[in-house]
Amino acid sequence: MSLGLMNSRTSFVAEAVRGLRVSGADLVRVHGDPLFVTRAVPAQDKVAVVSGGGSGHEPLHTGFVGPGMLDAAVPGEVFSSPTAAQIRAAIRDVDSGRGTLVIVKNYTGDVLNFSVAAELLGEDHPTELVIVDDDLATASMVQGGPGRRGTAAVIAVEKICGAAAEEGAPLRDLGELGRSVVMASATLGLAFRSCTHPGTHRRSFELDDGQIEFGVGIHGERGIETRPLADAMALVSDLVRPLVSETGLCRGDEVIAIVNGLGSTTGLELGVAANELETFLSSGGIGVARALVGSFVTSLDMHGLSITLVKANDEFLRLWDAPVRTPALAW
Amino acid sequence: MSLGLMNSRTSFVAEAVRGLRVSGADLVRVHGDPLFVTRAVPAQDKVAVVSGGGSGHEPLHTGFVGPGMLDAAVPGEVFSSPTAAQIRAAIRDVDSGRGTLVIVKNYTGDVLNFSVAAELLGEDHPTELVIVDDDLATASMVQGGPGRRGTAAVIAVEKICGAAAEEGAPLRDLGELGRSVVMASATLGLAFRSCTHPGTHRRSFELDDGQIEFGVGIHGERGIETRPLADAMALVSDLVRPLVSETGLCRGDEVIAIVNGLGSTTGLELGVAANELETFLSSGGIGVARALVGSFVTSLDMHGLSITLVKANDEFLRLWDAPVRTPALAW
Repeated sequence: MSLGLMNSRTSFVAEAVRGLRVSGADLVRVHGDPLFVTRAVPAQDKVAVVSGGGSGHEPLHTGFVGPGMLDAAVPGEVFSSPTAAQIRAAIRDVDSGRGTLVIVKNYTGDVLNFSVAAELLGEDHPTELVIVDDDLATASMVQGGPGRRGTAAVIAVEKICGAAAEEGAPLRDLGELGRSVVMASATLGLAFRSCTHPGTHRRSFELDDGQIEFGVGIHGERGIETRPLADAMALVSDLVRPLVSETGLCRGDEVIAIVNGLGSTTGLELGVAANELETFLSSGGIGVARALVGSFVTSLDMHGLSITLVKANDEFLRLWDAPVRTPALAW
Repeated sequence: MSLGLMNSRTSFVAEAVRGLRVSGADLVRVHGDPLFVTRAVPAQDKVAVVSGGGSGHEPLHTGFVGPGMLDAAVPGEVFSSPTAAQIRAAIRDVDSGRGTLVIVKNYTGDVLNFSVAAELLGEDHPTELVIVDDDLATASMVQGGPGRRGTAAVIAVEKICGAAAEEGAPLRDLGELGRSVVMASATLGLAFRSCTHPGTHRRSFELDDGQIEFGVGIHGERGIETRPLADAMALVSDLVRPLVSETGLCRGDEVIAIVNGLGSTTGLELGVAANELETFLSSGGIGVARALVGSFVTSLDMHGLSITLVKANDEFLRLWDAPVRTPALAW
């Protein structure tokens, strides 16, 4: 067992982001100092959409820069918020005069740094902040603490708001739209094996044979409970049942579903999960209107998956279906 | 550490493939008995393009079914060829009267079963077979044995021939085109950790700390040499130098590059690899005209990567750029 591909820990993220100029040459531009990623061809006369956060979740967020989704993404070091200086530079670069929608996963550092950046920019660069807090595993922490974590629902917020911004929606409406997607979304995840920090052999936690960790997030932290392994049908039901309840889904409703691998989960496993998800929901009369199945919001090389449900409505579906062209998502 | 997501080993692949109906509902149709995947909307009046092989390499091949790429994909069990009966049923289903281009990675079982299927179909269903054998690690086995293995260059063959078929190219020309892509392609891979067979804790081979396996394929087999870990720049050079030599690349040439994760390789590592690849090639005056960076031809959860170079020409680039819409690749 080896450490993996790396030149040095200090330049790891910057070099990785520079790699985007190779695959996404026609789509994205990498800015080096401070580090952020914008579209290769800047959009004009629309609200800019900006997101970001710690690295280690690729393709999130840098892979979602392009027409129909983000105007800029701001990557921090592994599992660490980007600095306010990076965020400020990115917003300045992409604000074409209509303001900036800022989409942030709910972590203390991210919310702080994105808020500080917005404040520093002042009235010349108006912003609306959408905080994504979809992770049900942390629901019990709402009172007083930082609240629920933000995980894979951020993709739905970026896709739907990105499409609306492309259509010319004003800043305030985009803020409301983003918050309505967050309200309609819920996520739960589980892990079969924790992740390894780059350049080390250090697992973030250990599980005995035959155990899984239920309710994990995307930063290698333990979940809410260590449980015995069960079959795919049982595990997917355990993830989905609380999501259905939380989002108030009833017979006849439809969802946008994200079956998300956390790093080293095979495509075969994600296919099995998607199959079980559809079976579970259809038995309750709930339709899967759209689904993404793949590894989109990862936790380094964690072996596990999360399921996100977004209660769909006509507007969400229309915006979801709008064209998108980014390194990691295109249709 | 747990086994992963599964209901039963015997139904694992079939359930996983059924999952495609969820994510790719508008793109693909899953046929259950025998198992194969076709486009949701069958193409008319064009040569059909069919591929397949053992499972465990997802998104290959089922993820590449759709307009601009494959008409059908035929998945076998994990690391096992599909049966001739599956292949025959798939070709029969998609042949619209112009014949079928059959793209096969060079493994004894695959070549045998696809050839038998083509033979059984006879003159009613004419076929051309393109055998992909891009893996330089097995070059020394050419004399007498089964020849070089087929790995990630199969994506380039499927994309380029898929586009040409969409344009109306006749069967014989597609066979020649496919073979010309194979001739222009070479691949090498390395691993930091071997893969785990689904439903077991069994690693296909073990490496000591600080060792890598150079020249691995995509079935968990050992490579050609166990070497000490080196930094990313050295490892990428070691992979790319023989590819440049084999494909006869000279100053002023351009390539289509595929930087391919083998399963659990992080997006950050693949970004670092893409960055090093571009640096290495540009120092020799070779341009990266197009690049795919991601996990497209996996070996279950292997931690490692392969690099494929395809010496580009105007025709390859034009066909590469043609529209494609599949579950795993779209632009």
